[in-house]
Amino acid sequence: MTERKRILSGMRPTGRLHLGNLHGALDNWIQLQQQYECFFFVADWHALTTEYATPGQIRENTWEMVIDWLAAGLDPAQSTLFIQSDIKEHAELHLLLSMITPLPWLERTPTYKEQLQQLDQKDLSTYGFLGYPVLQAADIVIYRAHGVPVGKDQLPHVELTREIARRFNFMYEREVFPIPDALLTEVPVLPGLDGRKMSKSYGNCIFISEPEESVKDKISKMMTDPQRIRRNDPGDPEVCPVFAYHKLYSSPGQVADVARGCRTAGIGCVECKQILMHNVLSRLGPIHERRLKLERETDRVREVVLTGNAAARKEAALTMAEVRKAVGMS
Amino acid sequence: MTERKRILSGMRPTGRLHLGNLHGALDNWIQLQQQYECFFFVADWHALTTEYATPGQIRENTWEMVIDWLAAGLDPAQSTLFIQSDIKEHAELHLLLSMITPLPWLERTPTYKEQLQQLDQKDLSTYGFLGYPVLQAADIVIYRAHGVPVGKDQLPHVELTREIARRFNFMYEREVFPIPDALLTEVPVLPGLDGRKMSKSYGNCIFISEPEESVKDKISKMMTDPQRIRRNDPGDPEVCPVFAYHKLYSSPGQVADVARGCRTAGIGCVECKQILMHNVLSRLGPIHERRLKLERETDRVREVVLTGNAAARKEAALTMAEVRKAVGMS
Ligand code: SF4
Ligand code: SF4
Repeated sequence: MTERKRILSGMRPTGRLHLGNLHGALDNWIQLQQQYECFFFVADWHALTTEYATPGQIRENTWEMVIDWLAAGLDPAQSTLFIQSDIKEHAELHLLLSMITPLPWLERTPTYKEQLQQLDQKDLSTYGFLGYPVLQAADIVIYRAHGVPVGKDQLPHVELTREIARRFNFMYEREVFPIPDALLTEVPVLPGLDGRKMSKSYGNCIFISEPEESVKDKISKMMTDPQRIRRNDPGDPEVCPVFAYHKLYSSPGQVADVARGCRTAGIGCVECKQILMHNVLSRLGPIHERRLKLERETDRVREVVLTGNAAARKEAALTMAEVRKAVGMS
Repeated sequence: MTERKRILSGMRPTGRLHLGNLHGALDNWIQLQQQYECFFFVADWHALTTEYATPGQIRENTWEMVIDWLAAGLDPAQSTLFIQSDIKEHAELHLLLSMITPLPWLERTPTYKEQLQQLDQKDLSTYGFLGYPVLQAADIVIYRAHGVPVGKDQLPHVELTREIARRFNFMYEREVFPIPDALLTEVPVLPGLDGRKMSKSYGNCIFISEPEESVKDKISKMMTDPQRIRRNDPGDPEVCPVFAYHKLYSSPGQVADVARGCRTAGIGCVECKQILMHNVLSRLGPIHERRLKLERETDRVREVVLTGNAAARKEAALTMAEVRKAVGMS
């Protein structure tokens, strides 16, 4: 048996996850864990880089999210699940890497200026926000990960991690860090109920833990093709968020039927949505069952994370010992 | 008995200390420890902000410096002596404070631009160098110090620490950190053997641990008033580094005699230096004795630091628990 390559990925503790998170990240993680040695973490420090002024209850959100992880199928027997800020070594390595990271590398990160503009209602001209990619580099190299699953927009961050790792190895003349590869991942983008990106701040989400009645209610109120006003108007499924959901939740046969029915006014939106409801609920059913069980076993959930923390800490401490040796601090 | 106020100060691990360090900082610490509850630390992370490319043996330098501390009279029974990087909470709080520290606060720090220019043979346009004052703020507030002994040039850093502490308390609506005061300290500046600032990089130092013969040799070769060429030329003690040493090491009577003798050519430089040698050596004698003993008791020195580390860690962990509670991460 060959050793499995190690990958690492994190998710900000936003509390209960929605279907966008499920299909945009979690489903991918669940697949990856069969093929790789996976380290998955709650990126609570990262959450603070943008949410420092209104952090809310990060710990509560962490537990809600971890329960969703487990309910959806992340398997602690296969993967190491842990909380970033519980492993102090992340902060240590971040501090150390900050010393060798040239400021211009950070200032020219494409995502930096973009986010400054996009999130302009928040004051993000902070030292920590500028250093976000350094923290990300520390997260990755402290586990000497070989790969990082990312979307296209995150590629510059992985490139920066590679540059920082190379600079460290070169400067201290030791191959302490492997140079990680980006595992470019294409994930389906699920629109929100109103057709925009699904996001808590837009209030257009269906949550993984959404109760059955509420799922039905939300789907029944979903936006459809705005041109299809009367039952007899033909519609265009490609502009309809309901159809985007069908592509993820319905069988290929159903998808074809719905598309045709919509275009020919052979199916009404109410009926179309009822098919979707049924399919979404049969996907969420087993997750809800597991979730109910997990909610009653909070000790077990904590145990999972404590075990994951311990495993992560052990790896991180090993790396830090190498790092300190290389720098002359041991 | 009223509780003593707590102060904190650090020194970069430059290895064996020289007389400039002794009079510029260590003597002051030794006095402070009688009046305050003192936390003194080896600022090894700070050393990396400027020396990251050539860190040398930071740990070795640490031990040499701590031995000098103890030999000179720092008393572990009175003060907590510890190593910054051994207390992981410094890195944690640094990371957290980085999130709330506005970039412009750092960019406008007067010492930042000055140092960038002064140390222009080094590449200091790094993320860590820019964040140096954030690390300093974390060092201070993590022990909830009331005061920080500083020279005038360091006042802007303490001001920044105060601003960061205030911002944290305000943002999370809790008085987690006391606002520390600067204890403005005037210390004599001892010139190097060549009249410039005493500095290892200039090779113009007398070390605290300098052997007797070597002290004599170095003093005998010290620069004097360059206008005093022949024995019969009168000199100007105020431009002579030897005289600067007399002011620190000789009795007021001797200082007056030397000054008069120099101005009237009543005393030769050789004789003047012999008086100084004697006085320097009688100051260093007891320090050397203690140092020799400590060099043989490396286990005791390590024990002192381990005890100090444990005491510091306990305090730092208490503060971090408060910090996490305030931010919602516990
Ligand atoms: S029939 Fe279905 S796909 Fe077509 S507009 Fe209505 S909800 Fe959308
Ligand atoms: S006599 Fe002493 S003070 Fe005067 S120039 Fe010589 S060394 Fe300096």
